[in-house]
Amino acid sequence: MRLRLPLLCIILEVILIILFGALVEYNDDTHAKLWNANKSHSATRDDYENEFYYRYPSFQDVHVMIFVGFGFLMTFLQRYGFSSVGFNFLIAAFSLQWATLMQGFFHGMHHGKIHVGVTSMINADFCTGSVLISFGAVLGKTSPVQLLVMAIFEVTLFAVNEFILLSMLGANDAGGSMTIHTFGAYFGLMVTRVLYRPNLDKSKHRNSSVYHSDLFAMIGTIYLWMFWPSFNSAITNYGDPQHRTALNTYYSLAACTLATFAFSALVNPEGKLDMVHIQNAALAGGVAVGTAGEMMLTPFGSMIVGFLAGTISVLGYKYLTPVLESKLKIQDTCGIHNLHGMPGVLGAVVGAVTSALASPGVYGDGLQRVFADAETGKWNPQSRGGFQAISLAVTLGMALFGGLVTGFILKLPIYGAPPDTHCFEDGLYWEVKTFQYHFYKRVAGHRWDKSPLATPSRSPLLGQAHPHACLTLWEV
Amino acid sequence: MRLRLPLLCIILEVILIILFGALVEYNDDTHAKLWNANKSHSATRDDYENEFYYRYPSFQDVHVMIFVGFGFLMTFLQRYGFSSVGFNFLIAAFSLQWATLMQGFFHGMHHGKIHVGVTSMINADFCTGSVLISFGAVLGKTSPVQLLVMAIFEVTLFAVNEFILLSMLGANDAGGSMTIHTFGAYFGLMVTRVLYRPNLDKSKHRNSSVYHSDLFAMIGTIYLWMFWPSFNSAITNYGDPQHRTALNTYYSLAACTLATFAFSALVNPEGKLDMVHIQNAALAGGVAVGTAGEMMLTPFGSMIVGFLAGTISVLGYKYLTPVLESKLKIQDTCGIHNLHGMPGVLGAVVGAVTSALASPGVYGDGLQRVFADAETGKWNPQSRGGFQAISLAVTLGMALFGGLVTGFILKLPIYGAPPDTHCFEDGLYWEVKTFQYHFYKRVAGHRWDKSPLATPSRSPLLGQAHPHACLTLWEV
Amino acid sequence: MRLRLPLLCIILEVILIILFGALVEYNDDTHAKLWNANKSHSATRDDYENEFYYRYPSFQDVHVMIFVGFGFLMTFLQRYGFSSVGFNFLIAAFSLQWATLMQGFFHGMHHGKIHVGVTSMINADFCTGSVLISFGAVLGKTSPVQLLVMAIFEVTLFAVNEFILLSMLGANDAGGSMTIHTFGAYFGLMVTRVLYRPNLDKSKHRNSSVYHSDLFAMIGTIYLWMFWPSFNSAITNYGDPQHRTALNTYYSLAACTLATFAFSALVNPEGKLDMVHIQNAALAGGVAVGTAGEMMLTPFGSMIVGFLAGTISVLGYKYLTPVLESKLKIQDTCGIHNLHGMPGVLGAVVGAVTSALASPGVYGDGLQRVFADAETGKWNPQSRGGFQAISLAVTLGMALFGGLVTGFILKLPIYGAPPDTHCFEDGLYWEVKTFQYHFYKRVAGHRWDKSPLATPSRSPLLGQAHPHACLTLWEV
Repeated sequence: MRLRLPLLCIILEVILIILFGALVEYNDDTHAKLWNANKSHSATRDDYENEFYYRYPSFQDVHVMIFVGFGFLMTFLQRYGFSSVGFNFLIAAFSLQWATLMQGFFHGMHHGKIHVGVTSMINADFCTGSVLISFGAVLGKTSPVQLLVMAIFEVTLFAVNEFILLSMLGANDAGGSMTIHTFGAYFGLMVTRVLYRPNLDKSKHRNSSVYHSDLFAMIGTIYLWMFWPSFNSAITNYGDPQHRTALNTYYSLAACTLATFAFSALVNPEGKLDMVHIQNAALAGGVAVGTAGEMMLTPFGSMIVGFLAGTISVLGYKYLTPVLESKLKIQDTCGIHNLHGMPGVLGAVVGAVTSALASPGVYGDGLQRVFADAETGKWNPQSRGGFQAISLAVTLGMALFGGLVTGFILKLPIYGAPPDTHCFEDGLYWEVKTFQYHFYKRVAGHRWDKSPLATPSRSPLLGQAHPHACLTLWEV
Repeated sequence: MRLRLPLLCIILEVILIILFGALVEYNDDTHAKLWNANKSHSATRDDYENEFYYRYPSFQDVHVMIFVGFGFLMTFLQRYGFSSVGFNFLIAAFSLQWATLMQGFFHGMHHGKIHVGVTSMINADFCTGSVLISFGAVLGKTSPVQLLVMAIFEVTLFAVNEFILLSMLGANDAGGSMTIHTFGAYFGLMVTRVLYRPNLDKSKHRNSSVYHSDLFAMIGTIYLWMFWPSFNSAITNYGDPQHRTALNTYYSLAACTLATFAFSALVNPEGKLDMVHIQNAALAGGVAVGTAGEMMLTPFGSMIVGFLAGTISVLGYKYLTPVLESKLKIQDTCGIHNLHGMPGVLGAVVGAVTSALASPGVYGDGLQRVFADAETGKWNPQSRGGFQAISLAVTLGMALFGGLVTGFILKLPIYGAPPDTHCFEDGLYWEVKTFQYHFYKRVAGHRWDKSPLATPSRSPLLGQAHPHACLTLWEV
Repeated sequence: MRLRLPLLCIILEVILIILFGALVEYNDDTHAKLWNANKSHSATRDDYENEFYYRYPSFQDVHVMIFVGFGFLMTFLQRYGFSSVGFNFLIAAFSLQWATLMQGFFHGMHHGKIHVGVTSMINADFCTGSVLISFGAVLGKTSPVQLLVMAIFEVTLFAVNEFILLSMLGANDAGGSMTIHTFGAYFGLMVTRVLYRPNLDKSKHRNSSVYHSDLFAMIGTIYLWMFWPSFNSAITNYGDPQHRTALNTYYSLAACTLATFAFSALVNPEGKLDMVHIQNAALAGGVAVGTAGEMMLTPFGSMIVGFLAGTISVLGYKYLTPVLESKLKIQDTCGIHNLHGMPGVLGAVVGAVTSALASPGVYGDGLQRVFADAETGKWNPQSRGGFQAISLAVTLGMALFGGLVTGFILKLPIYGAPPDTHCFEDGLYWEVKTFQYHFYKRVAGHRWDKSPLATPSRSPLLGQAHPHACLTLWEV
């Protein structure tokens, strides 16, 4: 076990480096020679027109969502914070490199070379997001080796599915309701189904949050929430579509948040709010306008979609997740079905309907800036809506099939998966420091007498046989 | 109680959705048809000119301040982190929608419609900031229902006051020293005065920080500090005014920080620094250049203002806050009078003086880009300074009157306000997990013997009769 | 002691304000008169061309790295979180003002005045970064007064070194592998060498992390990692160089992260990952492309450099840091030699080699946009590479000499440095709250009996004689 993770990391990175050396080139906006060669006007003006200035702020917001947003959102578990943020970091760093190759391969080689720039960076981060969604389903129950293997397959299939949707079916999905959220969710759910652990309740005392871990998770939630308008608009066309997408997402999220608080309190017997809902369901509004956000959805429409998304997400956490586990044997640690699965499908449906209702009367000359088909004169909104619906079906099929195959590959007993008794536990993969721990009792009113109740050393016993005691000790 | 919060959220959101459906439209920069209709040059060039590219990065920085900055700044309380960041989230999500309507209504309907885009998003976030300032005064002593009701009234009055200042008096206040900080602070102080709790000391053991809660609060502080230059410059005119505002704010904050550390240590008997001062007073420099930041204040002037703001803010925390509570019965949980109240008034005065000293000799042709009056040829700096001073008076009057009325409305015993014994306590409104808790004693040198000292279940007793014990348990 | 910090802060800020009043002016892009005077085209177009829109997003990312990145990265110590983030805040706020003056003085006065704008803000933040790197070496062992004195000298020498490199030697170093990282690291290492404490092990129980402090530190790590592409590209030339730098840094960091995870597990006897490595070594890839990032390094080259940087950084933490302490008496709290020292030197070497290999065939007309020499027609890549190598030597010399002198100045017993027994301890400089602490035992199955085991008051005894007990109490 000791060597598996290091060797896999080194081998993967060496392969990536070799492939990048053979295949990847700067694009026109990043290459010193090509950028200058294409200049037509005055130097100053041209440099300001580099796509860097129009895409990079969006990229950075997306980047924050991937590394801080997803990473900290998953730190809610009491003893899995290192793994949540650390494995998120590892598989994201791998996936964005692998995604650059896979997406470049499928979305157009230029004379046998993959051209990279800020747009490819955003797309690679998007693909990475899909892997991190699936990570949420298997969180705490998989080794980092398994996660890397999952990422290899998921990134590849993501690129295939994205190619089918965007290039073959001509679908709109700038914010990835289908390509990112639906795909990532159902892929992950299928993987966790195949990896079903009947005895997972042996680790159930660690499968929950503590006070401060919930606050760390809120860092992730809030960053995802704030930057979702940037996420959905990051790769739309310039001008009004990008602006409109950010605006629609902003309103959808705001409405979703009120729905989340409302239904979180409503489904609780005492009317209390549940951190799980706030951390997750409040984000469903961003997922649900991922396809239609660039369209003339209107703030009104965005808010209705956001409200619905928050509602179904909370209800999913409350009523559906327990059923999925007990009936379908789907152990979904983060509840990605509620945050990405159902809202992603909702987003796909909303996108199909909004596409089918699009007309030159509403969009004017802007129609072709949203719907590429309209440029070619073949514009038929109903057929467009149909293709959007087909795209959802393809995505679901690819995700479920891909998750099934990947799940069985991950089931092989060669990856150092944690035993049922040690799930949701950092100590298996991380150096976790413990300290000598003393209780002192006050003697004679003014001094403290050292009276060691317990002196744990770093032993395999710790954190395992008596998890609660160890929690105390770790807090010290 | 169980139904009040959910029903209020749902009703408010439904009303918002209906009003948005009836009144809100995309503006020229977000509408597919209008954006294209107004094109004059080549397509590519025009799309780069969309205001999105010049306002959206500022918007995102402001957005971070509202949700992470304010939210985490208030997590300093040991047992109120969920509520601080959660209620901040809720009332901000509501307020930005309501503010879009109220500000749109007062600041110019277009053929009966409110036009929205990135600038309205920034303005809505600004208005939300004002509500969150007031939240700081009543933090820990109000139910979420009360907070939503407060937001309804405060947003409305904010929009009225903003209309009087900016549209009727022609005041300059790009960073909101008056409209946001002074208004929010005195509104909140009046509300908390009306809601005075003589027996609040029953909860005083929770009205303080613990080690890690202070670190969470520093996340809020640092984000507010870093992005304040974006806040003050977010809606200034393009070009030199926006650039200058960011620069002035940067220097004001730096000088303020040194003053804060100096006076925090100086007022302490042992010369020790106090986290409360660092978390709050270091930000006063941003508040105090909210009005004059876009003017030719110079870095020199900005640093003097920042230094003064930090000084009065620390002195306020040390000497004024206790007096406000004991003499004026104003219980100001976060000390907003020191962070937003006095520095806001200072900022208004600095703005009035700087306006009165403005001359074409200093500003050249740039004068009219800062002072709208100058464009119309009626430029009279002394009168401009006078209008700025009147604006401060109007703001104080509106805030105190509005806070008074709102306070009495919030005093009605129908909102589920926390009892005096349960203030500053998450458990009242949130599911807070507790765990079976054991002490283990070491037996025979090598193993642990389970010896449960305490097995709390989730009972109403917990966290109430024996708060300290529960703190321990929650830490577990 | 009580007065030293406050008086120093006040005196320094007063001096800064006076010097700013005498020397600092708005530049053409921030001055109301000059900006307008230089207008040539239509008003709208010109305002969009203000450098604010092309530099400010990068500035904000750098700003986040300085205040959140460095600040939280150092919160890993269990009892030094207030000081880590607080002193980081203080010395950064001072340094950016002082750096504005020093850099302005050395890099070109305009008619006796220093011109400021967004570029000077970025440069001042860069210089501040160097001071914060040195802070990492002496973390926990120095008083805030010492840190401010160190900043005075280090900022001054930084500006001299930067002037020699960029202006006299014409070196390329946009991301500061030499000027920021190498300089800051070796300066700090020399300071900590001179301040060597033979009895530091008296505080060793506090010189380590606890579970949640490691999570706070990860906030710093992740922000540094995400925004490093902005850091390295913040002051490159506009257009393709800026775009390319961000891209190269992105790939270097991704490859570095996989190397870090690989070698962290590889050097551990049980194959476990170490948070220290993940928090630090994963960033080395950003340091190592600080010089060559703007050149045609290619993604392939960037990934190789990043992989190497991560590898040497982890190996440094594991094998070199203990030797530096035991043999060379260099106590490097944060291991800056591994994160900034060696990767900085690697970056300088990579920059020299990449410069020496640059040719018009690869860069085309873009050559002069990267290498200023090429514009003057004196382009000689080998000589350019030689000057880069000389720059590294100069930097090392300046840093070691400057650190030596500064170290001896800091050794004077007048700054209130912490005693060996109280290093890595917030309580010396900060008000740290403690609380009455009770254990309760359950009596008769349903109620709690108050049984105070310990009632600490705020006494000097606390946190000192019995540090572990106090840790417990502080957690409460």
